Amino acid sequence: MNISIIGTGNLAFHFSEIFMSTSDINLIEIFGRKKTLPKEFNNSINYCNCLTKLKEADFYIICISDDYIKKISKKIITKRNNIVLHCSGSTKMDVLSDHLSHGVFYPIQTFSKEKKISFKKIPIAIESNSIKSLKKIKKLGLLLSEKVFLASSDQRLAIHVSAVFANNFTNYMRIIADEILKSNNIDSDILNPLSLETTDKLKYLSSKKAQTGPAIRNDIKTIKKHLHLLKSTNHFKIYEIISKEITKLNNEL
Amino acid sequence: MNISIIGTGNLAFHFSEIFMSTSDINLIEIFGRKKTLPKEFNNSINYCNCLTKLKEADFYIICISDDYIKKISKKIITKRNNIVLHCSGSTKMDVLSDHLSHGVFYPIQTFSKEKKISFKKIPIAIESNSIKSLKKIKKLGLLLSEKVFLASSDQRLAIHVSAVFANNFTNYMRIIADEILKSNNIDSDILNPLSLETTDKLKYLSSKKAQTGPAIRNDIKTIKKHLHLLKSTNHFKIYEIISKEITKLNNEL
Repeated sequence: MNISIIGTGNLAFHFSEIFMSTSDINLIEIFGRKKTLPKEFNNSINYCNCLTKLKEADFYIICISDDYIKKISKKIITKRNNIVLHCSGSTKMDVLSDHLSHGVFYPIQTFSKEKKISFKKIPIAIESNSIKSLKKIKKLGLLLSEKVFLASSDQRLAIHVSAVFANNFTNYMRIIADEILKSNNIDSDILNPLSLETTDKLKYLSSKKAQTGPAIRNDIKTIKKHLHLLKSTNHFKIYEIISKEITKLNNEL
Repeated sequence: MNISIIGTGNLAFHFSEIFMSTSDINLIEIFGRKKTLPKEFNNSINYCNCLTKLKEADFYIICISDDYIKKISKKIITKRNNIVLHCSGSTKMDVLSDHLSHGVFYPIQTFSKEKKISFKKIPIAIESNSIKSLKKIKKLGLLLSEKVFLASSDQRLAIHVSAVFANNFTNYMRIIADEILKSNNIDSDILNPLSLETTDKLKYLSSKKAQTGPAIRNDIKTIKKHLHLLKSTNHFKIYEIISKEITKLNNEL
């Protein structure tokens, strides 16, 4: 399979790494706006900064900001056999409808250039405008991951929202925790075993069963002590609203 | 060291397990309100439901709800050599001041009876009213964990608040994520690799550097799509307020 990657961000970088190390995949080119390929990429990869000069590929995988997917994709010249894919959780497939064969290839994971990652366990949500292309996209997905599944654009949006909670907001909870410790002269590393266990528990218990803490116990005295400590910070409101919602959960049980 | 555990909840259970398997510790008794020791505990442990009949111990470790610590602890009969400890994050040490030797033994971890846990990496925050007792408490702590450190009652409260964010609220983010997926007929297991990676990243990156997603990118279009999907749910407000705070963080950088 000949693949072109459009973009040089985090996801483009991780795709380039896994494509380079997968024997049935041939990464023929990366497109970016800059003059040269950013230095974190393997410098043996062909680089192109002119969309109309792209080589013909089986897949053009667009890994750029949602806002530019439609505009950039229109400039790619394709025939029926060239499938154009985007990788966005919250963008409908039909922004690519100028191309006869198009689809979506959405890996449910968080990517940072500084952190290596194995694709094997990453679920990939796919979609396509034709059954023929869908089969090809699935084949590509299975070269990277054990878990490739069909999801409509609406389902994908729901997955993306849920991923925002499970990753972005979860990470922000840890940012707040670290800030509270820092302002009390405590090393934030002491939370690492707790953070690890919080996720590890989900292998054995449902998230509802794993819920502990003052809010689920309706322990109003402790909640008040905590709110008092937070009262002059931006975190007060977040503590209050989340605790209120968890308390409702308690009443449901 | 002869130890009595006061209480039969999650923490009492995990302490009983680790004490039973630690050669320098002798778990002499557990106190509970019920007639008999709950069946999940090892049935070879002595059980007592009358506080005034407790055997003399080097440590009485109180593992009960914060609200009852003061009241219950007053009923324990002690001499100078018997140290009374509570394990609460948000309770000041001096609720135990009726006892000549007292202190705090606070393991920073989430405990559920259904999930086994290793104490070795769990940070334990300790405090005492005397240097002599503090040394003994530290010795006890080091039998269980590599990381035993001194924290004042105020610092411990800050640790507890931070743990609420890092564990309780983080778990609630996953409850929300699972709900969103369920209502869109998607298996919530697809988020497990993402949840694992979210925590694993923190070994390599600070929480601030690990932050990704629409809010930190100030991607207002995506945020609006997500809020639209959530508009008739309780999660709308939480999404809105957390995104607003993350966006502020973006402006700071």
